[in-house]
Amino acid sequence: MRREVLFSAVACTVWLCCLSIRPVQGGKLLVVPMDGSHWLSMKILVKEIVNRGHEVLVLVPESSLLMSESESFKKQFYPVQFTQAEMEGSFKSLSDGVFQKPPQIADMLLSVELFVNFTKLQLRGCESLLHNQQLMSQLRDSGFDAVLTDPFLPCGSILARVFSIPAVYFLRGLPCQLDTRANMCPSPPSYVPSTYSGYPSAMTFSQRVNNMFMYFVETYMCHLLFGHYDEFVRQYFREDMTYTDLISHGAIWLLRYDFVFEWPRPVMPNMVFIGGINCMSRSPLPADLAEFVEGSGDDGFIIFTLGSMVSKMPAEIAKQFLEAFRQIPQRVLWRYTGVPLENVPENVKLMKWLPQNDLLGHPKAKVFMTHGGTHGIYEGICNGVPMLMFPLFGDQGENVRRFVARGVALSLNIHDVTSDELVTALNTIVQDKGFKERMMKLSQVHLDRPLSPVDLSAFWTEFVMRHKGASHLRVAAHDLNWIQYHSLDVIGLLVMVIVTVLWVTLKCCLFCTRRCCRKRTAKKKSE
Amino acid sequence: MRREVLFSAVACTVWLCCLSIRPVQGGKLLVVPMDGSHWLSMKILVKEIVNRGHEVLVLVPESSLLMSESESFKKQFYPVQFTQAEMEGSFKSLSDGVFQKPPQIADMLLSVELFVNFTKLQLRGCESLLHNQQLMSQLRDSGFDAVLTDPFLPCGSILARVFSIPAVYFLRGLPCQLDTRANMCPSPPSYVPSTYSGYPSAMTFSQRVNNMFMYFVETYMCHLLFGHYDEFVRQYFREDMTYTDLISHGAIWLLRYDFVFEWPRPVMPNMVFIGGINCMSRSPLPADLAEFVEGSGDDGFIIFTLGSMVSKMPAEIAKQFLEAFRQIPQRVLWRYTGVPLENVPENVKLMKWLPQNDLLGHPKAKVFMTHGGTHGIYEGICNGVPMLMFPLFGDQGENVRRFVARGVALSLNIHDVTSDELVTALNTIVQDKGFKERMMKLSQVHLDRPLSPVDLSAFWTEFVMRHKGASHLRVAAHDLNWIQYHSLDVIGLLVMVIVTVLWVTLKCCLFCTRRCCRKRTAKKKSE
Repeated sequence: MRREVLFSAVACTVWLCCLSIRPVQGGKLLVVPMDGSHWLSMKILVKEIVNRGHEVLVLVPESSLLMSESESFKKQFYPVQFTQAEMEGSFKSLSDGVFQKPPQIADMLLSVELFVNFTKLQLRGCESLLHNQQLMSQLRDSGFDAVLTDPFLPCGSILARVFSIPAVYFLRGLPCQLDTRANMCPSPPSYVPSTYSGYPSAMTFSQRVNNMFMYFVETYMCHLLFGHYDEFVRQYFREDMTYTDLISHGAIWLLRYDFVFEWPRPVMPNMVFIGGINCMSRSPLPADLAEFVEGSGDDGFIIFTLGSMVSKMPAEIAKQFLEAFRQIPQRVLWRYTGVPLENVPENVKLMKWLPQNDLLGHPKAKVFMTHGGTHGIYEGICNGVPMLMFPLFGDQGENVRRFVARGVALSLNIHDVTSDELVTALNTIVQDKGFKERMMKLSQVHLDRPLSPVDLSAFWTEFVMRHKGASHLRVAAHDLNWIQYHSLDVIGLLVMVIVTVLWVTLKCCLFCTRRCCRKRTAKKKSE
Repeated sequence: MRREVLFSAVACTVWLCCLSIRPVQGGKLLVVPMDGSHWLSMKILVKEIVNRGHEVLVLVPESSLLMSESESFKKQFYPVQFTQAEMEGSFKSLSDGVFQKPPQIADMLLSVELFVNFTKLQLRGCESLLHNQQLMSQLRDSGFDAVLTDPFLPCGSILARVFSIPAVYFLRGLPCQLDTRANMCPSPPSYVPSTYSGYPSAMTFSQRVNNMFMYFVETYMCHLLFGHYDEFVRQYFREDMTYTDLISHGAIWLLRYDFVFEWPRPVMPNMVFIGGINCMSRSPLPADLAEFVEGSGDDGFIIFTLGSMVSKMPAEIAKQFLEAFRQIPQRVLWRYTGVPLENVPENVKLMKWLPQNDLLGHPKAKVFMTHGGTHGIYEGICNGVPMLMFPLFGDQGENVRRFVARGVALSLNIHDVTSDELVTALNTIVQDKGFKERMMKLSQVHLDRPLSPVDLSAFWTEFVMRHKGASHLRVAAHDLNWIQYHSLDVIGLLVMVIVTVLWVTLKCCLFCTRRCCRKRTAKKKSE
């Protein structure tokens, strides 16, 4: 079968014919997003929902990082008990923390600390919203059909419960696998590696032992990470419920991942996979950038960014990078927002922001230098560009391990990287064609899906709005407690029955044996 | 949000752009179908694959029931060791068996017997194909990209293994849940009812106990049902493998069901749900039929069929039906192929075959009288027609229970049905508007999907042809044995470690206590 690369989209018909109901005047969607990079991909879906003729209201705290910028959709600002400076400080402490070079073993604890500190401020914002009586009654009266939210924060799920409307979740995943736990999705520890294990899906015996241990640790981590969420939810509803209970009512989980990258595992019918939603559309490059990359010749260019959250790089580390870039033939586009650098080589262009996905889509893009954040990795896969990775925090370590295991990336420790290591790694990736070929294969499988992630996520959001939920996809497991779910009560009963039967049988046998013996003894005596 | 019923299909773009590879000259697909009603839905997909420009070859035994009829696609007939009469006899014994009124408790055993007897002849056909050296080498040389098959019979899976090409499975499910077992899909017995239990997903404690017991029975039934398949596979490959091992290599499982009807449960990433594939397209009714149904006035008409497999109904039972139909105002279209009936009322039209889906789609269709076969039920849901059901064998009992539980159908026992019962049931369904309303709700949710089942199944078949499988969706669980999968070895080790630690601690404590006691005793003595 001959194949070729096509650069056009094909059309198909959708089966919303016959008896299907469709909103005519459009539905009403309440959007409760999470700030920062999470918002960057959620707004792609929000724009699509607006384009499809629905009324959308996005709730934005008055002090926010990326959410207040002008967009075509309607926003409702609400006052919060913290200032813009406090909020920016909170993000900064999160991003600064990544260069505090933690010892390997404390990585997990550092992540817990960063998460709790960061979310505590966000919860205060959530509190301001929930106790804003005027806004709450205005929202209630608006008659929304559904809430679209990121369960990284509890506000959206709480509003869904307060207004008795279904919730659509939009996320990559939650720490300690809280999302799969809440959605009752089975995760057999024999082949589903825990987030922090760094193991592949096919594990050795000792890895499986460690993985089982990590599952217990993760369960404990859920208490550390979401304990203050549980408290928040309990206080608000004055009910004995946890955050897990609250989000277990999510109608549809739109998950920003794809099994071309994640290890395949059991899923639930209400989990929809929209990995790569952020690399769908590409715009032409601005003139100066286009000139810079086109002028890179056959050597091509490199894109270097540590994500929108990380801005401050220690001067010593930055120097190593500059030194390395001086020694390579490629041009380099570096998203850099730290202190001004001196002696920047001619082949390096520093920028405060760069159109990452548009650049990765350029045929001359040779290497993507990234921290392994969830957005960047899918843009890398999508555009088939091999990577040099510098994991910083959270799930990035695990992301990077997977890419390295697939032979499409190399990884370096940013805390003690040297210019020599950088040059060697970059040259290896550029010269060993295997990196590019394997990445292209990943890319082809990733892109070969029946519906685009944007259309798919918009469809399911509309579905929830049309049918007031997706109750036919909700498993009955949600109504079982831990003992019932694992059938421990049933197993207990069966064991009891078996033991009783065995005991009665044994007693009967003993009784019969004794009678026989007695009879014989009596017979002997009488004889 | 105002809504209205739309009768048109809408279009969307598919995300096969950018870097995605597409076959240009078309792929080559080998189709190994199962005869009878299974073939009727598989050929919808086969036609679509042909329409998409691929080369398709359908393997058909020289003696077959429904597969030899003229179709647009290429067929390869192969000689088998049984005659057309034998084959028809085999199907007849299967259909005749359904009126042998089995006692309730023996239903399961009768199903096992029917299945084994029926498949033994089919396996002989499979044997003829596999030992046809000339045909086998011709097929091998053809260089197929994939096999599309129904794992109800092993021939297709065996060919996929012999030719080292991936297999796409097309099925509703296999007896004793062999499909989910083979695909390593978790089925927690606490909320996934076993096929023959007849329980809902939300079970009481006693139902959960019974369900657990049924799981053990089902495991045993797998040996009864597929023991001869295991033997067949072992003999052919001269390897110690089971049929489950063989089909566990399926790349994609196209499953003809939908959670609007099935109880929601965990699924695997390579399971694709295409329930309702058989009710997609509708043709205009032939003139005589159109006249008959249009003339039914406001009372409408009833469609009565017991499926393509069942033809012979005992005269006594047929009489009860005729008597009932005489008493109702609706017209009746009855698919009847038994002995000629006398005194057929004017409102009844007997036909050897009827366009079931086209009739169900007619607005005057009031009730669908059916045995609850997998094709009919989805046509009923699809067209929103409430049902009067007569379960006969196999999974029909379970299908019917679910419809009755959802309040969209009534069920009667065909073995001792009376005309009075029939009249009451039909009048109830027609007059109680709840039946129609609930069925319409089911229908709306069922039809509201992002892609039609035909497009979805064609996409995944093409995907497997393009990428030589779907290895990124295959879980690592396939490489684990039963003990490893359930982490019993890991749990064993952990228990051993805990017991050892406790034992050592206990021994240390005892040792210390004894030493202390001895010292005190010695001290006392010395005092």
